[in-house]
Amino acid sequence: MDEEFAASVFERNCASRGVLTDITGRWGSLALGALHEGAFRFNALRRRVDGVSEKMLAQTLQALERDGLVRREVQATIPPRVEYSLTDLGERVAAKMKELIVLVEGEMDQVRAAQETYDRAR
Amino acid sequence: MDEEFAASVFERNCASRGVLTDITGRWGSLALGALHEGAFRFNALRRRVDGVSEKMLAQTLQALERDGLVRREVQATIPPRVEYSLTDLGERVAAKMKELIVLVEGEMDQVRAAQETYDRAR
Repeated sequence: MDEEFAASVFERNCASRGVLTDITGRWGSLALGALHEGAFRFNALRRRVDGVSEKMLAQTLQALERDGLVRREVQATIPPRVEYSLTDLGERVAAKMKELIVLVEGEMDQVRAAQETYDRAR
Repeated sequence: MDEEFAASVFERNCASRGVLTDITGRWGSLALGALHEGAFRFNALRRRVDGVSEKMLAQTLQALERDGLVRREVQATIPPRVEYSLTDLGERVAAKMKELIVLVEGEMDQVRAAQETYDRAR
């Protein structure tokens, strides 16, 4: 890609910022983190991403599907079974997101200590 | 940490989810990505994170400071110079975020192609 026209999430009008928002948005990061564990049916995914509404999860999955990160497969059973999984690119993005999640979860003691120090000073 | 009480961003009441939201929220990811390049004064950071309002950037930095990811330093100059930089933990989190940003920016051709296919099918 031409250097001058390379994507930059720091530019407000660059399409890459919209994709970063889909990935890191309120539920995108959790949906990707969950799908990194394997394929899910909609309701199972909704239980895994504790607290998400049906509407928000549907919107999140739709945005990620449009970006080519999530695959939606309808199986010809009765009733039809709809399964969500990651595409190859989605796997790569989700792997990075998972590393971020593991890092945050692993450092919560340090984060909590920082929060207490901050709150005491105010 | 006891396995049973390990932090999990997938639990709606786990404090780690709040931290993940601070990091990946609307502006958190971009602020961390920018600070990964070096220390910034407030207005310079605001120019780098194109499109963020003064209020939103202030709130974002405050949340990241409280989590122990961002350091706010007031230098005793006239007028006082306030500089934002990453803590050690912030550097580690921002490095992961930067990897995610670089991945997304580098795959925008593939994402755009997916979006066009998706939109044509509807």
